[in-house]
Amino acid sequence: MGAPLRLGIAGLGTVGVGVVKIVRKQAAMLATRTGRRIEITAVSARDANKDRGVNLSSYAWESDPVALASRDDVDIFVELMGGADGPAKDATEAALAAGKDVVTANKAMLALHGQTLAEQAEAAGRVISFEAAVAGGIPIIKALREGLAGNDITRVMGVMNGTCNYILTRMENAELPYDTVFQEAADLGYLEADPTLDVGGIDAGHKLAILSAIAFGTRPDFAGIELEGIERVTIEDIHQAADMGFRIKLLGVAQRTGRGLEQRMMPCLVPASSPLGQLEGGTNMVVVEGDAVEQIVMRGPGAGEGPTASAVMGDICDLARGTRLATFGQPADGLANVPPARSGLPAPYYLRMALVDKPGALAKISTVLGDSGISIDRMRQYGHSESTAPVLIVTHKTTREALDVALIAMQQTDVMASAPVALRIEHV
Amino acid sequence: MGAPLRLGIAGLGTVGVGVVKIVRKQAAMLATRTGRRIEITAVSARDANKDRGVNLSSYAWESDPVALASRDDVDIFVELMGGADGPAKDATEAALAAGKDVVTANKAMLALHGQTLAEQAEAAGRVISFEAAVAGGIPIIKALREGLAGNDITRVMGVMNGTCNYILTRMENAELPYDTVFQEAADLGYLEADPTLDVGGIDAGHKLAILSAIAFGTRPDFAGIELEGIERVTIEDIHQAADMGFRIKLLGVAQRTGRGLEQRMMPCLVPASSPLGQLEGGTNMVVVEGDAVEQIVMRGPGAGEGPTASAVMGDICDLARGTRLATFGQPADGLANVPPARSGLPAPYYLRMALVDKPGALAKISTVLGDSGISIDRMRQYGHSESTAPVLIVTHKTTREALDVALIAMQQTDVMASAPVALRIEHV
Repeated sequence: MGAPLRLGIAGLGTVGVGVVKIVRKQAAMLATRTGRRIEITAVSARDANKDRGVNLSSYAWESDPVALASRDDVDIFVELMGGADGPAKDATEAALAAGKDVVTANKAMLALHGQTLAEQAEAAGRVISFEAAVAGGIPIIKALREGLAGNDITRVMGVMNGTCNYILTRMENAELPYDTVFQEAADLGYLEADPTLDVGGIDAGHKLAILSAIAFGTRPDFAGIELEGIERVTIEDIHQAADMGFRIKLLGVAQRTGRGLEQRMMPCLVPASSPLGQLEGGTNMVVVEGDAVEQIVMRGPGAGEGPTASAVMGDICDLARGTRLATFGQPADGLANVPPARSGLPAPYYLRMALVDKPGALAKISTVLGDSGISIDRMRQYGHSESTAPVLIVTHKTTREALDVALIAMQQTDVMASAPVALRIEHV
Repeated sequence: MGAPLRLGIAGLGTVGVGVVKIVRKQAAMLATRTGRRIEITAVSARDANKDRGVNLSSYAWESDPVALASRDDVDIFVELMGGADGPAKDATEAALAAGKDVVTANKAMLALHGQTLAEQAEAAGRVISFEAAVAGGIPIIKALREGLAGNDITRVMGVMNGTCNYILTRMENAELPYDTVFQEAADLGYLEADPTLDVGGIDAGHKLAILSAIAFGTRPDFAGIELEGIERVTIEDIHQAADMGFRIKLLGVAQRTGRGLEQRMMPCLVPASSPLGQLEGGTNMVVVEGDAVEQIVMRGPGAGEGPTASAVMGDICDLARGTRLATFGQPADGLANVPPARSGLPAPYYLRMALVDKPGALAKISTVLGDSGISIDRMRQYGHSESTAPVLIVTHKTTREALDVALIAMQQTDVMASAPVALRIEHV
């Protein structure tokens, strides 16, 4: 049995408490598996007096996470506070400077400051591990960085925000509008304090930036993500997509193209019968495609005390066993600085529009599409009683640039009753 | 850049050639990711003159894999010959004795001799890695042994023989009987030289024994698996299961029960809408349940040059990066010797029978079930023109023991036209 491995845990919310519970309950199992006793020596959180349902009395209490990170009796600084900047980043930097390894669940910090943190960790000969930052309990970082290390990764995709997937599937299954389900999710405590992080796609975008860096050997580039939330998805879109055999998902896609790194996080249509199309509720799914492995799909709970703590413990067990890897799977100074490529590869699109109900309206729209070089795969006009006619079009593959030209030209005709909705169709 | 890592590859079939291709094609990428150049120094196979589509002229050729395993210029012995005993095991033991690490895709060897090999590796301070032995390209060994190391694993399940899943889904989709599809699979080269390894469930059983050892910290116990192949599954079973919302899969299940370790590999009914139920063709799927993570599902190609070579390369990259773990995730001498528990936990069952078409037949069968304490969830009698009536019963949960009593009692009545078929229903 090696020397005990001593944890200092900053942040005692859901995940932090989950980690404390596992370390206490599974002490013998963890020692057997890793060859070392895993102990908590000190903890830190905002409120020392709150009852968290676990006994913390045997751990030293630090009100300042930076002080916790620098303690002599801490080997691993476990950062579970969250927030891209502020105390989480200060304490992480302090931990590295003090020669500690860091385990964190902080997707925002990694997505925005991953490059400098990775460089700092390497200079200090320390490790930053962050399995819990992406897709909750799914060991996707490990799969991508280690299990699939022999692959030239060609594409990474995923549904990585459980709250958005809950909202979209709940809208569909209960026939409820977005606003109603959004409020339900808020009442159930599913939303971040700032709900835009969830429904605006930002949280999922952070995760995609991290996966991209590992998959493609590029610097994490959150700013380069083409980002769109689910706020504008209507129950009509969901119905009509279903009518054509699709479901709408907040889907992240990252791939290298000849023009740069394409990273998108936006509502897309996926085939209803595909693994991504079948994903219900708060579950996450990540799809990885590589030249050798073809396609791997991983599915699991994207959040919650147990699953996220499971991911944190995986990182801690790795360190206890002596596994030490570069932050993004290769030396940080070699990560490529690749320019973003906006929706580089052509795709089919779903277009929903309301046309003024007069002769020739559909012909005008068809002409605009044709003039932009976009051909129509399927078109449906639905029966209607109002003065506007709901029309759906599924295009053949086209570029986003050509589509944007067509969307502008459509709105310059006199037959559009409102702005059209365009959603990409991803064949997965 | 560290010292080059030198591979000696024994076995140049599909997988071996796949590994050679990746090492050659991705040399720069692998060096960037692992910090070491990965080189092949020597190879071995039965036929030195066969054209394998890759240039092997720069590698030393050894006709004897044992000699290859002992070469001074080999750091990792890559065993891709297969076979539980004979040259594969001899060469693996020789490699460990000579101080080499071993990477292997050999499920049979691990399932049958994993305990002694693990002990030998530990005594020699060497590592045996075997990601490619289970579920092809899916990095399930890594997920279970490392990513989920903080979990008390409660159940492992999976479809782990692509050929069987191909046969079962092809029977269903093409409405063909077992014998026809079996012959198709043989013609397509999908079957092992001894097809019983596939359709008898033995190959999948080897994989389950390996996963069990890691999941539950037990000695690999292939002999303790309750094993049944797919040979007796009929197109009628498939139809009638579908009619009740199920699909038939060759499903492996392992779990610890109060009475011992339950390991089963047999045809089961799973809900058609579940991830396992939706699995088509040669794809594999493994489901892992743990106390913290809840449920993780991993899906990917179960065989083939690229996917299996991807798994081998994952192990090689781990060793190049200095990751060194105990064979089954903990010291071999601590692996528990747990007795097998035959289908310990109660489950519902699907029963198919042909009853003699006379008054009171169904009543007699119902009485037999009732007398065995088995209650009926659903029953269907199908229209028929022959003198026997096809009857399906789905029971409520019962033990295998109670069911076996009932099956014997049924056959002692005068209303059974033939032996009944009983398949377990697994709610996944």
